This record gives sequence, C-alpha cells and structure tokens, in this order.
Amino acid sequence: MTTITAPISQTLRERFAQIRAQTEKICSPLEPEDTVVQPMVDVSPPKWHMAHTTWFFEQFVLGPYLKNYKVFHPSYAFLFNSYYNSVGNRVQRAERSTLTRPPLRDVYAYRRHVNERMEELLETIKEEQLEELLPVLELGLQHEQQHQELLLTDIKYILSTNPLLPAYNKTAPGVTLRTPVKADFLEVPGGVYRIGFQGEGFCFDNELGVHEVLLSDFSIMNRLVTNAEYLQFMQDGGYSDFRFWLDEGLAMVRAANLKAPLYWLEQDGEWYQFTLNGLEKLDPYKPVSHISFYEAHAYAAWSGKRLLTEFEWEAASQVYPPVAGNFQESGLYEPSRAAQTEGMQQLYGDAWEWTYSAYHPYPGFKTAAGALGEYNGKFMINQMVLRGGSCATPENHIRTTYRNFFHPDKRWQFTGIRLAQ
Amino acid sequence: MTTITAPISQTLRERFAQIRAQTEKICSPLEPEDTVVQPMVDVSPPKWHMAHTTWFFEQFVLGPYLKNYKVFHPSYAFLFNSYYNSVGNRVQRAERSTLTRPPLRDVYAYRRHVNERMEELLETIKEEQLEELLPVLELGLQHEQQHQELLLTDIKYILSTNPLLPAYNKTAPGVTLRTPVKADFLEVPGGVYRIGFQGEGFCFDNELGVHEVLLSDFSIMNRLVTNAEYLQFMQDGGYSDFRFWLDEGLAMVRAANLKAPLYWLEQDGEWYQFTLNGLEKLDPYKPVSHISFYEAHAYAAWSGKRLLTEFEWEAASQVYPPVAGNFQESGLYEPSRAAQTEGMQQLYGDAWEWTYSAYHPYPGFKTAAGALGEYNGKFMINQMVLRGGSCATPENHIRTTYRNFFHPDKRWQFTGIRLAQ
Amino acid sequence: MTTITAPISQTLRERFAQIRAQTEKICSPLEPEDTVVQPMVDVSPPKWHMAHTTWFFEQFVLGPYLKNYKVFHPSYAFLFNSYYNSVGNRVQRAERSTLTRPPLRDVYAYRRHVNERMEELLETIKEEQLEELLPVLELGLQHEQQHQELLLTDIKYILSTNPLLPAYNKTAPGVTLRTPVKADFLEVPGGVYRIGFQGEGFCFDNELGVHEVLLSDFSIMNRLVTNAEYLQFMQDGGYSDFRFWLDEGLAMVRAANLKAPLYWLEQDGEWYQFTLNGLEKLDPYKPVSHISFYEAHAYAAWSGKRLLTEFEWEAASQVYPPVAGNFQESGLYEPSRAAQTEGMQQLYGDAWEWTYSAYHPYPGFKTAAGALGEYNGKFMINQMVLRGGSCATPENHIRTTYRNFFHPDKRWQFTGIRLAQ
Amino acid sequence: MTTITAPISQTLRERFAQIRAQTEKICSPLEPEDTVVQPMVDVSPPKWHMAHTTWFFEQFVLGPYLKNYKVFHPSYAFLFNSYYNSVGNRVQRAERSTLTRPPLRDVYAYRRHVNERMEELLETIKEEQLEELLPVLELGLQHEQQHQELLLTDIKYILSTNPLLPAYNKTAPGVTLRTPVKADFLEVPGGVYRIGFQGEGFCFDNELGVHEVLLSDFSIMNRLVTNAEYLQFMQDGGYSDFRFWLDEGLAMVRAANLKAPLYWLEQDGEWYQFTLNGLEKLDPYKPVSHISFYEAHAYAAWSGKRLLTEFEWEAASQVYPPVAGNFQESGLYEPSRAAQTEGMQQLYGDAWEWTYSAYHPYPGFKTAAGALGEYNGKFMINQMVLRGGSCATPENHIRTTYRNFFHPDKRWQFTGIRLAQ
Repeated sequence: MTTITAPISQTLRERFAQIRAQTEKICSPLEPEDTVVQPMVDVSPPKWHMAHTTWFFEQFVLGPYLKNYKVFHPSYAFLFNSYYNSVGNRVQRAERSTLTRPPLRDVYAYRRHVNERMEELLETIKEEQLEELLPVLELGLQHEQQHQELLLTDIKYILSTNPLLPAYNKTAPGVTLRTPVKADFLEVPGGVYRIGFQGEGFCFDNELGVHEVLLSDFSIMNRLVTNAEYLQFMQDGGYSDFRFWLDEGLAMVRAANLKAPLYWLEQDGEWYQFTLNGLEKLDPYKPVSHISFYEAHAYAAWSGKRLLTEFEWEAASQVYPPVAGNFQESGLYEPSRAAQTEGMQQLYGDAWEWTYSAYHPYPGFKTAAGALGEYNGKFMINQMVLRGGSCATPENHIRTTYRNFFHPDKRWQFTGIRLAQ
Repeated sequence: MTTITAPISQTLRERFAQIRAQTEKICSPLEPEDTVVQPMVDVSPPKWHMAHTTWFFEQFVLGPYLKNYKVFHPSYAFLFNSYYNSVGNRVQRAERSTLTRPPLRDVYAYRRHVNERMEELLETIKEEQLEELLPVLELGLQHEQQHQELLLTDIKYILSTNPLLPAYNKTAPGVTLRTPVKADFLEVPGGVYRIGFQGEGFCFDNELGVHEVLLSDFSIMNRLVTNAEYLQFMQDGGYSDFRFWLDEGLAMVRAANLKAPLYWLEQDGEWYQFTLNGLEKLDPYKPVSHISFYEAHAYAAWSGKRLLTEFEWEAASQVYPPVAGNFQESGLYEPSRAAQTEGMQQLYGDAWEWTYSAYHPYPGFKTAAGALGEYNGKFMINQMVLRGGSCATPENHIRTTYRNFFHPDKRWQFTGIRLAQ
Repeated sequence: MTTITAPISQTLRERFAQIRAQTEKICSPLEPEDTVVQPMVDVSPPKWHMAHTTWFFEQFVLGPYLKNYKVFHPSYAFLFNSYYNSVGNRVQRAERSTLTRPPLRDVYAYRRHVNERMEELLETIKEEQLEELLPVLELGLQHEQQHQELLLTDIKYILSTNPLLPAYNKTAPGVTLRTPVKADFLEVPGGVYRIGFQGEGFCFDNELGVHEVLLSDFSIMNRLVTNAEYLQFMQDGGYSDFRFWLDEGLAMVRAANLKAPLYWLEQDGEWYQFTLNGLEKLDPYKPVSHISFYEAHAYAAWSGKRLLTEFEWEAASQVYPPVAGNFQESGLYEPSRAAQTEGMQQLYGDAWEWTYSAYHPYPGFKTAAGALGEYNGKFMINQMVLRGGSCATPENHIRTTYRNFFHPDKRWQFTGIRLAQ
Repeated sequence: MTTITAPISQTLRERFAQIRAQTEKICSPLEPEDTVVQPMVDVSPPKWHMAHTTWFFEQFVLGPYLKNYKVFHPSYAFLFNSYYNSVGNRVQRAERSTLTRPPLRDVYAYRRHVNERMEELLETIKEEQLEELLPVLELGLQHEQQHQELLLTDIKYILSTNPLLPAYNKTAPGVTLRTPVKADFLEVPGGVYRIGFQGEGFCFDNELGVHEVLLSDFSIMNRLVTNAEYLQFMQDGGYSDFRFWLDEGLAMVRAANLKAPLYWLEQDGEWYQFTLNGLEKLDPYKPVSHISFYEAHAYAAWSGKRLLTEFEWEAASQVYPPVAGNFQESGLYEPSRAAQTEGMQQLYGDAWEWTYSAYHPYPGFKTAAGALGEYNGKFMINQMVLRGGSCATPENHIRTTYRNFFHPDKRWQFTGIRLAQ
C-alpha cells in the first residue's frame, strides 16, 4: 500500500465488476449451509451479506436511475434491508437466520441480475445524471467493501462455533517468517493538527467536519502489541487483577469467564489460535488480535502505558507516512509479523487499533437527508473508534481519516493494540 | 389403518430399508440451507435428525455387533448424540445450528455407509446374536419413526419463520371435502380397565407396568374439536377471559400476546393457516391443531366440558375399536375432516389429543440399564401425555397404549382437543 | 396431634381471635425493615402477608355481610389482593416489595380495625346469615393459617439472604435429643381405597371429588429420610451422577451449581444449617428438609427405592393411624428427630413429603363460582402434591386428605422425603 | 450561589458536623421500611447510603488515623463497601436490599459512633498528620454530598414505585411563580480554552489533567429547555419518529414503550409529574427533567439544534459568570423556573445538563494508588458527561469544572437539556 487516498485510478465499470466479483470469491469456499446461520446477533449469514449488498444497488441506484427497472423479487427489499427505517419494514437483525429461502443459488442469480442491469445503466447513463449518481454508486461500492471485511470475520466466527473447527482457506499462501521487531516509542510533536478528510475522492460522512485539534507531545509504539507480549500480561494474572480493568470490562470477563483473546485455545500447555486457515499454533511475534477494547485498555494499564486517542492516531499518521500493509488482498486473512525492523510499522492493515475515543460526531457533522443519512450518524453512541484497517480490509478501502467503530466488548473483528505514552 | 399393533408383517431387512428411505423422502424437498437452522430450541435442524437417527444404529448396533466396524467419522458421535449422558459429551441441544459442517451431502454419505454396513450385518448375523440384537434394532427403527414425525413438525416450523412462507409440499394430494360431522358424546362404562401394553411385538418402556385402573362412567366426544368450534371460543373472548385458564397458561398467552393457535394468520378479516402445503384458507371442519395444553384446557372449560385422562382415553379405545386414520402415509401432512359421520372418529391420526394426565411412570416402571435407559424415564416430569398419533405419525408406529408427551406450553406439534364429560 | 379432622371444638369467635393473634405473634420478632423486602418472587414480604390475610376478611366477609361497612383505606384492595382476577386489578406478585407504604404500624392498625369490625359482625349477625357466612369465614381462617406457614418460610428465606445470618427466634425451646430410629418398611395391603375428604368440618375444594383408587401392595418407610442418610447420597457423588436425576432436575442443579439442600453450609469440613434459630450444626438424625422434588427423586433413585404417590400416602395414613407430630405450635420451627422408635413416625408434621403425583383435579372436581373459585383450581398444572404438613403448619390446619402443592424445583418450604418400595 | 469554588470558609469540624447532619435531615421523613428496598439496581436503599458514607470515614480515616480505633461492628466493612475491590469482598450492588439488618436504628447508632470518634480525632490530631489526613477527609465529605444527591433521587424513585404515590416532603416551601423566559442563544467566541480544575481547594481526580482545547465559535441557549417545549416535541410525534433518534435510543424507547419523561403521568388529558412533593400538575415553564441522553439528543435533533460538548459547556461558563441557582439547600427538590428574564440562566442547579461528550480521562489523567484510585477512573467508559448540578446537588459541592457522568439511558437523576447551535 503506497497511497492512502480515495480510489480514482480504475474506471468505474472495472471497479464495479472487480468489487462485486471479490465478494463472490470470498464466499466461494463456503457450503450452502454455512451461508445461512447466525450464531450470534452481531454476525450475519454470508448469504444475507451477498444479497444485502446487492439490494443496496437495486434500492438506491437501479430503482431511481434505470428506466423501467423491475425488481428481481418483490420481497427482497423486505428480506435484505439492513437498518434503513426510511426504506420500510425489514427482517429484524436477530432473525436473519430465518432466511433459509431464497436458497444460495437464487442469491447468486439475484447478484447476476443486478450486475447486468448495473452494466446496462453504466453504459447508457447520460453524463449529467452520472454526476448525480456517482456519490451513491461509490457509496454502494464502499459499502460492499465493508461487507467483504464483515464476511471474513463472520465466516471466521461461524466456522469457529463448529466443533470440527473447519478451515475456510485450505490453500493459505506460504509466509516467510520475519525477524521479530523490538518495541520502541516514536515521538509525535504537540501542536494543532487538522483532523478529518480533506482529499478529493470518497470519504464517509463521519470523516467530515474537518477541524483543528490541539495536542500535546506524545510518543507512539512502533508496531502492534504481539501475542508474546499479551501472553505475558495473561501469565502475570492480568485477567484477574481488577486494578487494570474498567469496571464494566471486569464484569464482562468475570461473567463470561474470559481468560484469553477470542479464538485462543490451550491444549496440553500449548496455545493455539483458530484462524481462517484452521487451528494453528500461536506465533508469538504476530500481533495479538480479537480482543475487546476492555482487554486492550487493561493491557495498556498493566504495561504502564495507555491507548491513543483517535486524534493522536491521525496526527501520528500525518507525521509517519504509511508503508505497505497486510490487507485482504494478501489472502493471509490473519495479522502477520511486522514487515521491517525499522520505522513505524503496521499503522495500516493487520489489525484495527482500538483508540480511547468515543465514536461521536465531528464538529459540524451533518446527517444527510433521506435513507442514506442513516448510514453512520445514528450509531454515534456507546462505541469506540478504531483506526488503520486490518488484514480483512480491502487495501483501497482504507484511509488515514477512516473511522471504524465497535462497542467496547466486541471481539470478533481483527482488533489489536497500539500503545502511547 | 386397520390394525393397531406392533409391526410384524414385513421382514426385518425390508422394514429397515423402508423406514430409512422414508426419512430421506421426507427431506427430499428441502434446500441444504433449510436443513441446518434451529429457529427455536425445541426444533432440530433436519440435517441433524438425519444424522442422529443414523448415529443411533452406529452407536448401539454396528459398534457392538458388527465385527471390525469402523465408524464413518470419529467426531460424529460427539456431533450427533442427542441426550445420552452415558455415551459421553455432545453438542448441546441449543447449539445444533452450529453444525453447518458436515454438509448435507456428507450426511447422506453417512446414511449410505451405515445402511450398507447394516445390510451386511443383517445378512451375516447369527441367529442367537440376532435375538440379542433385535430389541435394539427395533428400538432404532421406532426411534427413526419418531424423528420422521419431528422432521415434519420441525420443517413446518422452520419454513413458517421465513417471511416468504414457502410451501414444503408443492404437490399435495387432492382431497374430497367430506360432510361435516356433528359433535356427539359416546358412553364409556365405568369399571376396572387394564392399562399398558400387553401384546407381543414392540412397545416403549413407558407403556410397561401393566396395571389396573378403576374408572367411573364417562362419555367421550365422537371426533376432534374443529376449527369452527375453536373459532367460536376465540370470538367469545376466550383468550382474554381469565376464568377459563390455568394461571400459568394465562401468563403465557398474556406474555406472548397469543390470540389464536400457532400458524393461524388473519388477513382482511379472513383466517388462514400456514401448512406444509403453504398458506391455506382455514377449513372450518378440520380439527383444530397446533394448540398448547393450556389452550386445550381453556377451550374445554369454556365449553363446560373437560379433557380426558390418559386412562379414560385408553379405556375408550378398548371400547371403541379403531378405524382408519389420517397418518403420515396419506401425504396430507394436515389434519383432515372426519372420515365418516357415524361412530367414533379420529381416535387415531389427524392430531395428538392432549390428556389431563401428567407423564409419570406407571406402577413398577423400571429404567433399563445402560444408555437406552435414558430413553424415556428421565423426562417424566412437567409434561402431559398425548394419545392417538397425528397426521405426521407413521401408521405402523402407533398403538392404543402409546404415550406421547410434551410440556403444556408447546404448540409446534400437531396437537388437538377431544372432550369428555 | 391426636385427631386429624376439621376443627370444631373452639367457638368461632375464640378461633378467630386466636388465629389472628397467632399471625401477629409470628411477626413480633421482626424489624419493620424485615417486613417489606422480597428477595425472590416466591417469597412475599411479611407485611404483605399480614395485610393480605386481613384484606380477605374485608373483601369477602365484612364488605358483603356487615351493614354500612366502610373499608379501612380505599387503596388497600388494590395493594393487598393476591391473585383474584375477579376482584380487580392488583399489585403484581413480583412487585410486592414496592409497598414500603403503608408502614408496618398502619398494617397493624388495619388488622385491629378489621378485627373489631369482625367482632361486631359476629356479635350481631343473625343465625340464617351466619350459615351463609360460615364457609367463607372458615375459608378466611384456613387461609390465614396457610399464610402463617408461608410467613415462617418466607421469614427464614429473607433472613438467610442477609450476610449476618440473624436468628429469628432467639429463645428456641430446649429439645431433649431422642434416640435415632432405624429405617424400616411397613406394609400397606393393595386394594380399593377411598380418596378425598369425607368428614364433616372444613376441607379445601381440591380434596373433594371423593373417589376410589385401586392400589397394589406396597411398603412405606417408617420415618422421614434423615440428614445423615442424605449426606451419604451427597458423599456418594449423588449430585453429579446423571443416572439418578430427572433431566430437568439435572439441568437445575448444574445451572445453579447445587451441591446440598437449601440452607446447608459447609465450613471447615463441617456441615451447618441455617435455621430460624440461627446457624446450627447439622443434626444427623433430624429429617432432611428444604429439598426440591428433583432432589427427593434423585435420592430415591440412588437408594434403589421410589417416592410414594399421593394415593399411596393417603392409603398408608388410613392404615397407620396418626400420632402426635411436630407442628408450628411446638415453637421449634425445625423438623425434629422421630418421637418414638416403634411404628409409623412423622407422617404428620416435621416436613412435607414430596409425592410422585401431579397436582391435578380429582374426578368430578368443580371450580366454585365467583372469586373464591380461583382459590385452587387454576394452579393445577406443573406442580407436585405434598402431604402431611410440616413443623411450620398449624396443627389444627392439617388433615389426612390435605393436598399441598409446589413446583418441583422449589426448596424454600420445609420439604422432605419418605420412600416406598 | 455566588461563587463556584471549593469550600474553604467553614472550619473543618463545622463542615463535618453540618454535612453529616444534612444526610440525616434528608432521611428524617422516611419510614424504616422505605430505607431498605431497592426497586432497581441503580437505586440503593437509603439505609445503605447512610451506612456506606459512614463506613467511608471508618475505613479511610478512623482506621488509619485514630489510635486504637475499634470498628463499630466487624461485618459492616463487608456490608457497606460500595465498589472498592482493594478493600475486600462486599455485598454485591444488586443485593443491597438483603440488608434488612442491621435495622435503621443501628445505622443511626453507627453514625453517632463514627461522628464521635471523628470529633475525637479532629480534636486530638497533630498538625503534620492533619495535613496527610485532610485530602482523605475532604474526599469523605464530598463523597457524602454526592450520596445526599443520590439519596434524594433514590428516595424519589422508591416512592414513585409505590401505588399510593406518597409525598416525601409534605411541607414544600411556597414558590412565587416567575415570568417565563424566552429562549435565546448567547454567543461564545472560538479559541483556546483551558479545561479542568486550576483553583486551590478540592476537586475530583477526573477534573485534573488541565489542558487546552481549541473551540470554534458557537452559541448556547440562555436557559434550560422547558416542559412546554418538550411537550411540543412529544405532540409532534417525537418519540416515534426514527429520524431524531440514535439507534440504541430508539431501541430503548420501543422496548420500554416510552412516551414521556420518567415520572410524567397523563390523566384525563392533563399531564402530571410525580415529585418529592407528591403528584403535581405539570408546570409548562419549569425545565424538563428525568430524561435520558437519548431523549435529550432526540429533542435537539427535532429542534434543529444540538447538545453541547463538555468543553463548550465549560468555556461558556467561563464567558458567562454564574448566578445563583436552585440547589438542594432551597428545599424545593424540583427544578424551578428561571430566576431572571435576562442573561444566562440555570447554568448551575435545577437540572444536570447532558453533554455530547463521553466520560473519558483528560490527557495525563492518573489513577491514584490504593483503594481511592477506584473512585472515578474505572467508570470511564460508556457514560456521558453532565454538567452544572441540579436541584438535588448541595450548592457548595458543585464547580464549573465538575464532571458528573451517567449511562445514556438513565433517567432517574434530575437531568435536563440545554441546546447549542
């Protein structure tokens, strides 16, 4: 990854085709049965993801812009709307596993149908209409990329609940093991930083409201916290020592009897990790991932350091220009060891970095009118901002100013830790 | 149905092949996606039913009796054990939908593998061993027939949760509408009746402990309560008049805001019923079904009558010899109107009849040693006995002395009402 | 206790005064704060018991029968109705602890007010009206006696949740320790027994519907199971061996991690019991109590015996005439060792005996018209019958035909075990 | 209220006596029964508040500083510790209503005992020890003042659950109704503001980490939003129009079927409010209170304005010097109409103002070592900051920099709305 900006290089039709095809490539190793279950409410059935991203184009692009467009099936708007109240009723989130019908093959047919109509639209649309359409179309593509990441994390969760612990990805690319990187802290000078998206291309509304933030000097860890470092926290009694924990975090780990990150498994004194490539022995030098904000915070407290705010993270990313990262395109689907031993590492890709910033509106944030105004604003409470993307994020989807957000107890995303002091 | 006795007419190998094939015939209209979900804890995924009934033969027949038998897959015992603590750990009931793998085609392969080994066993087994094996083998077949009924009711429930309300059975046999039958009460004289299974063939352990019961004179309705009669109860405010309800039943209908049997749907002032043949207009003269014991009891109280005890039912069935009933073999998969206008109707088939008898052991009931002792006895609390079989019961599975049992709040079985006074 | 019949010896006014005073005597050791809490939904605040038993007389006696009766407070009918839908709205059971007002002293004033009006009524009522009134009045007294028992068990539960484990009864009467009694089984011959209340005086409607039941020969233990015997079951791994348990019982003990009866406490290898007299060392020869039906059933299965049905219990009580028992009047408020070493012991008093009979209506059971018809019938599901009374039951409240009933998981009553074989 | 700084004017012993006496004055109208219940987990029994604030002095002052101090009762540390893990085990928050013992009079004796020992300590302590002691002592007093506010809000909640809706305060001071104040927006210039406590006296650790924040120009409403204004939002369908709501807020109001602030009651088309003075007709010109953050946010969205951040609030309070407010000392225990028609009104007192700022640490926030480090830091997640104090806050407890915090769904505090644009 050499540049972190909005995508402009590909032609629109190529990008549309590429992104739509990538979704299906992600789903290709799945059995039909894998695509319908919902083992926890956060996870959506893969079949639903595939149909929902398609519905987005039907609802917001084809319906308004393609003359005489006939919907593929009159019930699909009801079945595959996610959370847009403006668009009407919908299957409730927790009930997505009721959708055993339409079967997977119908969802593929739905995708083909919408793809073909989209091609027709992009071929025939007039310039002035295209200008109006472009932001919605781009949002549709970005939206599908978000669901590609969720597909990978949801598939991982689904397979992990199966007692057979099946591997999703049976032909993971070989990886040369890199030299472990020593932890170091890099300086970021205090001052006024401009926060928010100022480039040209695409950004989400939650990155807008560019504003200046006054920061003090701080220093930031040169890479993500590793499994070995986290294991030390665990072996030091970190999960049971109340002094390191936020009160609600302590309540969570006690109630669920948590002792390790999600997907970690101890067998005969050895630690293993369930990955999309199956069960693997824990690599001590890979970044720790699948931890909640609470665990990230407790680790930081134990280490005598702290987490960054999202403003500090964005300032650091301005000071330390990005280098290539491990994204979805690598096909690893797991965080990997830092690429180089010098300089700022893993700022992008590998694992989302929990910040100690609530996901709130930037000053001057405006909710768009209509259904697409429900995209981001209504979730701005009780969630924490994560930055930098992960090994499941498409490379051309991420930006320096990109704000991801999850509740502090969530662990099924590729989430990791970077410290500040 | 002309005789209600244990099956003896078919040869063993034919029966085995026929019953095993019937399970697959029941599942043939399903999509793979239909076979993996579990929309409520009572319902099991059809794929699980298919594998579990197969595991039963592997665990209790092939393992002990076929020399050098190699299990199809080392994990299947863990995956497909239902509730036998003796046999070891298992996937918990509420987590059966995690089993997206093995995929459906592997479960079919599992069935073929076990069928072939069973054929081999039945061809080669020696007479004296066969005698020892026979009770277990017969139990396996009866067990599979029980799961055939559950398959039909679970499939119905699964499809009903889908907003598309898909039909399972697209080619339901045509039915000539019969003349409605007037309700009447037939006498059963008091006295000592012998209760429990005394025949030759097979019965479950819960039918044993033959004993005498002293009954007073009573009279019994000549057919099941119809949809029209039940609708009258509803229209008379039956669901909201506390006087007719057991206290826990009232709490249930209030908490869940129940107003009608399961699967009933009102649209524009007309009542419809979701069936395995899709959504159908309510036939007023078919038996009401998919009601809880609480609703059956409230209906009886409203009508000024009462439910029978299981002993009264069995006594009545001795007095009124059985006539043909509507069973699984009819392929209707719905209760139907009474066949004749005279005499005792629908004592067998159509809908299970709730009795006001708790499912408790008969005097002298003994739990068998070993795993198969867990078959029935440990469920003898908090459940009510149902008698007579339903349209989903295989005809040669039912007997006069057969005791089915469910918790009084369950509604997803084909359960109906017969009154006494 | 020499006779087990309905009370007739005292004059009505004396009985009224005595029973009403006894309720207040039971509450006299309590702090006002003790009388308002509700630590679990089954337990009612003592203040509520005191007011509710008083409301019964106001609602069903003074209102209809005392001319110009003015209710003590217009809201009390709403506050202190228990479960009579016919009488109108009420504070829901789970919300009885909201009633911090009226304060305790107002409830005492309420009791005085109703007592005085009742005296007035009993002095002035005419003979023919008295006849009509008598059944309701008697029901009110029996009802208050039932609440006296509940007061003792609810107070015990309330105090047990307090970390200080305060003693309710600081001056328990001294007890001479009796010689332990060897377990023995006494014969009861089979035959037809007449079940249900046939005497003169009072009985509850659930004892009516006298009918004949045919029983086989059986034998019955000569006393209740002791703490020592139960401890042996525990030490033999009884709580974790699934073979002894009903499935729902096993689920309960696992979910709540039960290892011993309610109120048992292990400290430094010694067993203690919280009692109304404070924490006491376990007496091995007292009857075990505060166990669920599930535990009683598991104990019986472990011992190779079984529980009785309620019909067997009633038959045995006809064969073995009652001897004096340990009731509320003893002031011990704990089960005690058997009184004699010979003959049938503890059939009455000490601890209620779980039977393996569901609490269902007797043949011909009729619900009374009006509010008092809600007294018993609507609870006839999912509960098990207990027989014989306990150390918290008033002696002149119990009868051979008395049917108490609780859900099989309840443990806060004085419930024990008697075996049959 | 003329100055908002830490208290220094009173001598220490006078302040100790005054604050301790005020707690008892607040509890004096209560019945013993009122002081023990816990109708929801957020609410603590008043008796517990009285004992817990006393325990604080015993644990952190008398124990360490008074020679030969003997605790009043060995179990009280266990009973009345709130959430200090460092201090050992404790009664869990949700189980505070189990503490019917010690009775109220013992808690008063406990208070007297500790007060007397504290006087002894303050008389005899040496200068250099006093210096060490002072911060803890001051924290103890501030802590007790916080509990005074909670006492009032918890008492209000407790009484509101009682069907009699009893008044706590039967002799509320008369209030002359003031002229309603027109809504206006006052300018606050952008720039760098210094945030956090810089004065001398006392502040909480969460106010430390003084730092500069860069703000843009904004304007702020001159008073709190009134009942009449909020009613307009309600009548405009505000509670059911999803466009105004955060997603989790909408889920909350739908699940609980909320239609109005807590304590609002509609009777015959008129709105009433339960207050500590009993049920009162809604005064349209008083500030709305007892609303969640979600409702505050929805109201702001409906009105086309927004909430302030806590930094904006603190900046505004630097620009607009405080005027007298309606605090606990007024004895009104309800928000009142604005005092003047000109200038900034109600910035202090009346109702806490929800800000759109998460309760997070200021830069450089340090958790103190030992038990008192658990005072604030561990709650810094999922809560929102409120500013300005309420009618239940002691006047000399509040400061410009004071940060209160509650979860966004809480409604039982005196919480209100001030808008920005």
